[in-house]
Amino acid sequence: MFDPVEKLKEFIRFPSVSADSKFKDGMKGAQGFVAGLLGSMGFAVDVVKTDVHPIILAHRGGDASWPHVIIYGHYDVQPADPLNLWTSPAFEPQIRGNRIYGRGAADNKGPLLTHITAVGQLLEQNPKLPLQITFLIEGEEEMGSPSFLPFLEKYQATLKKADFVFLSDTGIPNETQMVITAGLRGLVTLEVEAVGAKSDLHSGLHGGVLLNPIQALVDLCASLHTPDGKVNIPGYYDDVLDVEPWERDELKKLGANEADYRKFLGIDAFHTPPGITPFEAVRFFPTLEFNGFGGGYQGEGSKTVIPSRAFVKISCRLVANQDPEKIKALVFQTIRSRAPKGVKLTITAGHTGLPYVVVPPGRSNTPKNQSPVLARAFRATDAAVTEIWGKAPLYLREGGSVPIIGEIKRVLGLDSVMMGLFLPEDNLHAPNESFNLDVMKKGIETSKRILSAIAKP
Amino acid sequence: MFDPVEKLKEFIRFPSVSADSKFKDGMKGAQGFVAGLLGSMGFAVDVVKTDVHPIILAHRGGDASWPHVIIYGHYDVQPADPLNLWTSPAFEPQIRGNRIYGRGAADNKGPLLTHITAVGQLLEQNPKLPLQITFLIEGEEEMGSPSFLPFLEKYQATLKKADFVFLSDTGIPNETQMVITAGLRGLVTLEVEAVGAKSDLHSGLHGGVLLNPIQALVDLCASLHTPDGKVNIPGYYDDVLDVEPWERDELKKLGANEADYRKFLGIDAFHTPPGITPFEAVRFFPTLEFNGFGGGYQGEGSKTVIPSRAFVKISCRLVANQDPEKIKALVFQTIRSRAPKGVKLTITAGHTGLPYVVVPPGRSNTPKNQSPVLARAFRATDAAVTEIWGKAPLYLREGGSVPIIGEIKRVLGLDSVMMGLFLPEDNLHAPNESFNLDVMKKGIETSKRILSAIAKP
Repeated sequence: MFDPVEKLKEFIRFPSVSADSKFKDGMKGAQGFVAGLLGSMGFAVDVVKTDVHPIILAHRGGDASWPHVIIYGHYDVQPADPLNLWTSPAFEPQIRGNRIYGRGAADNKGPLLTHITAVGQLLEQNPKLPLQITFLIEGEEEMGSPSFLPFLEKYQATLKKADFVFLSDTGIPNETQMVITAGLRGLVTLEVEAVGAKSDLHSGLHGGVLLNPIQALVDLCASLHTPDGKVNIPGYYDDVLDVEPWERDELKKLGANEADYRKFLGIDAFHTPPGITPFEAVRFFPTLEFNGFGGGYQGEGSKTVIPSRAFVKISCRLVANQDPEKIKALVFQTIRSRAPKGVKLTITAGHTGLPYVVVPPGRSNTPKNQSPVLARAFRATDAAVTEIWGKAPLYLREGGSVPIIGEIKRVLGLDSVMMGLFLPEDNLHAPNESFNLDVMKKGIETSKRILSAIAKP
Repeated sequence: MFDPVEKLKEFIRFPSVSADSKFKDGMKGAQGFVAGLLGSMGFAVDVVKTDVHPIILAHRGGDASWPHVIIYGHYDVQPADPLNLWTSPAFEPQIRGNRIYGRGAADNKGPLLTHITAVGQLLEQNPKLPLQITFLIEGEEEMGSPSFLPFLEKYQATLKKADFVFLSDTGIPNETQMVITAGLRGLVTLEVEAVGAKSDLHSGLHGGVLLNPIQALVDLCASLHTPDGKVNIPGYYDDVLDVEPWERDELKKLGANEADYRKFLGIDAFHTPPGITPFEAVRFFPTLEFNGFGGGYQGEGSKTVIPSRAFVKISCRLVANQDPEKIKALVFQTIRSRAPKGVKLTITAGHTGLPYVVVPPGRSNTPKNQSPVLARAFRATDAAVTEIWGKAPLYLREGGSVPIIGEIKRVLGLDSVMMGLFLPEDNLHAPNESFNLDVMKKGIETSKRILSAIAKP
């Protein structure tokens, strides 16, 4: 069997930056590395071409009665800039203490190799393990997975026969507390532009005559929230489900502290709807956020101009059971109905992402028809984590969005078991990214225990 | 006597861009040109050093009982960029039709030479003209006249003995309608910055927890106007004087057309307080305008970030009798009282400018103690303009600000007769600036008639 740390070093050395065409060779190298490794483990490897970067599909079949798990990961990484802030070069892995440093170490090369290693060791110990395994490893995650949905649709018939998806591309709060991500927020993005006069105007010669596009947009934007911090769009909360008591209990067990969080953010006060803690707000409630606002003079000092145009970029985070298309329609309709006279308002749709939620077995809102293999996976997770990590895992929703998880549910009908493996100090998407090798070791053991447990009894 | 058009060509050839140190030689050339010309006319010329560009002070004294006029102008010009949009080079004057093209032709070299020529011709015809004349010609007008106030204060004792200031640095609507600018708006500029978290945040991981600085500022900004287009700051309009019927009548005579103005601006609807026309709004009422708003992501597409900071640049145009310092205090106080919790708000003062108004003799609101020389100048203006231009002049306030006119009133106690000479098609501050030579000719005759009329009877 290979040494997972040596393999991880090898993997990191390929500068697989998907968003930058200068790194074509790095992408090919990483892709060849993964395909080769899975091939050497006896998998039938298919490198599926897409419009951008290929998806590696590697299958270990077996009897049709065997349970079937899809293990997801990605071989692409974020750009490494700014390079001068790295202590050791981004694509020359270095071990310092119990950490391996390098771009992609935690996102997602380390966690992906954790599962590949677990599978490799399991199959070495038991070559006849009654479990079908499909690795689905994409190369566009860091650029928004543009080829993922067409791929899912094309391979729908084959892939939907699987029982669930297993992956590690989420986080945990510390080295001892495993968190299974039980929900993700959805997303709707849009941009609103207001155009007034046909060119910028002198604010002396013409000030007082027309509606300034900045004013039009501040009036509109101010109308989109209530003073108590809720989104002020009729119907926005209609499909939001009540939070189950077990979810609030689970969150309490996380033991997150408001004062610490305030300090981390560097703010004096939170701004959440009445009666809702910040930890609940980020997980259980939708938002409407202004991500960018621009118009008029941006330089130093003053310029007495009435700008011709202004824009605002908006994103809505949605929670389970909210439909991005429905929310998008509500937002568009509300903005149109509040469009001020005297400026031309243009609303441009961005992208949407499905929210996602999965409920482990035995909870008040566990679906009655939950797949027995999924339920077994969750139970195995509880047992393995409790033993290996010393504490039971927490099942928590997250505020972020991973739209492919919702797409997998929609297109394939499959739920995902998201086992967190990266730590806050791993510096994802930042200089000096690293991965904790003790976490990797525990991750390998946990993954092995879970995969063994879901094999045909 | 010199030929004014030849002299104007000579003057334009000096690239006297005050804001750009590359044009030091052009500034020196223009300054030497003006000083030399006035010296050759018998004026005692003083080139007064300032922190930036010298002010030319040229005096023709006489008996202390003679009336005394200060003629104001500026020898500096705007930058000529973008150079490729000029039909003939910016600093190589060219006559096409009845126009002379070149940077500064209309702003302010042509109008200034109009008055210098008028004085030259008058003194040639009558070397003993009983009139004291002081030319005050600055070189920093296009950069905000930073040295003007210290200069005024230093020369206060001498200059305040004059009777009034005569100048041409304002516009007229067409070749036949003289407009005397009877009022200018004042100015208060400021910037408000809102800072939330200590760095930009992921809108998924933290969205819903804190007040987005963009939201803080849109809420604040939206509160600064009422829906019907007035400024929503307690006390803002307290010192605004009622408009006199003669002023509205004068404005009606201008015959400006709302449909034409809408078309010129490229808008569908005006946005003025109820019952106020756009032509009144721009002249008689104060404004609070957003000149710039920035925060968060400004590029293409979307970036799901909660920005750490956002800013808005604000300017207030004030009308006669409003005190910029008082308004500044009101605005600061209102913003502070509406500062939302959860962000740190910083208000930075910019600059202020005094509003100005002057009332010609015989109106309902003419000051009882109006200087007899000023009154004579206005009456002479009426007569000269009616004869030379074929129509009586209009006395109109303007929406723009020329803070030095208010400062002259405050420091020296002197009013200004602002005789408009540039046309909308003169392209001030833009490529292909030009000056109409027929207007110049009529301007010289008008200036001569006014100066003759105010000489000691």
